[in-house]
Amino acid sequence: MNKRHSMATVLHIDASVRHERSLSRKLSQTFVETWAAHRPGDNILRRNVGHHPPPFVTESWIAAAFTPPDARSLAMTAELAFSDACIEELEQADLIVMGTPMYNYGMPAHLKAWFDQVIRVGRTFSFDLARGDWPLEPILGGKTLVLLTSTGEFGFEAGGVREGWNHLDTHIRTCARYLGVSGTHHIGIEYQEFGGERHARSIADAHAEAVLLAGSLVAEQEQHLAGAPH
Amino acid sequence: MNKRHSMATVLHIDASVRHERSLSRKLSQTFVETWAAHRPGDNILRRNVGHHPPPFVTESWIAAAFTPPDARSLAMTAELAFSDACIEELEQADLIVMGTPMYNYGMPAHLKAWFDQVIRVGRTFSFDLARGDWPLEPILGGKTLVLLTSTGEFGFEAGGVREGWNHLDTHIRTCARYLGVSGTHHIGIEYQEFGGERHARSIADAHAEAVLLAGSLVAEQEQHLAGAPH
Repeated sequence: MNKRHSMATVLHIDASVRHERSLSRKLSQTFVETWAAHRPGDNILRRNVGHHPPPFVTESWIAAAFTPPDARSLAMTAELAFSDACIEELEQADLIVMGTPMYNYGMPAHLKAWFDQVIRVGRTFSFDLARGDWPLEPILGGKTLVLLTSTGEFGFEAGGVREGWNHLDTHIRTCARYLGVSGTHHIGIEYQEFGGERHARSIADAHAEAVLLAGSLVAEQEQHLAGAPH
Repeated sequence: MNKRHSMATVLHIDASVRHERSLSRKLSQTFVETWAAHRPGDNILRRNVGHHPPPFVTESWIAAAFTPPDARSLAMTAELAFSDACIEELEQADLIVMGTPMYNYGMPAHLKAWFDQVIRVGRTFSFDLARGDWPLEPILGGKTLVLLTSTGEFGFEAGGVREGWNHLDTHIRTCARYLGVSGTHHIGIEYQEFGGERHARSIADAHAEAVLLAGSLVAEQEQHLAGAPH
């Protein structure tokens, strides 16, 4: 939880390359606007990876990340600056709101580049072979992820006709463990490539669900804040 | 198949950001060198996405891709130049040899950026709503994918202890359909983070399997060439 107990921090990430035409951006906007209407004093951090893609990691980035902070050269420190900035946002966040389309059955490369920058040894996970076959553990914790997606096709849910082709929310849930996420909520718009009635209904339903979810998470947050030590 | 019937084309892709220290690069090199020793006249195309990452797609890239070729502006044509070059390599390839590490339970962003550039309407897939709920079909066909991976952890295979955390080869297999791949062979090195005997054995086994696989695919290729019309 954020140190200022009356205030929460929301990290709002968008991964679509589209601007006005993006469905996942509109959906994350609906969520964040509803949240802010309930809690106007909260801190909203913005990370727009779809329009400002993170740098790709490099071999020297990995070397820098595995060098202890006080042994790093200036070049190493510079190489990690973007990662540091993203991790500081993540550390502050109580709630992560992530809007992303499915591109080629998974995350846009832009969003994967962000995960590759923020999942970092000594910052978001620790590594210890004394733990045996499970040496990695997350360092952060207690965060909630609201994942808002848009897909061209449909049936990617468990039991759906394209379940085996879904590498989007499944992959993000696996990575979310290293963001310190303990609970994930997912709302998805489907049928974008088909248009028509099914798509229109899917958009309307997703926005209605996002408004409801924001309300219920605000209530949870306030209960949590009321119970926090002052 | 390649039009020059006595010759095959191999597209050799590497996604690791590492140089000498990369395990997946060494493994793809073993495969390609074995292949080339058997068939020195074959054409080897090289696409090193780990060291030369593809540009991220943008909203204007999507607009250009969806504009019919003869209606594209010069700027649109320029925006698609990298994609065109990668697709031309893919079109020529009989065999795709892809070396990639697992980063954060999936592809490196670099490799996803390549998929986002090459899976393109009108070039690698067609889209037609007359096909009902399955409007996408691949345009290319008859290619073989040899997927050579390296993972820090282990147990990502079906039934393995980390099966649910595997978003690497599963995702690549889903995308491979739109590369025109009809058969995939996967060899993986495991335990990189653990080192030790299990890891050493995994490396040795993978290289031995890669040599055998190259030999058996060479035999298939020659059977195929012998049966091709001249």
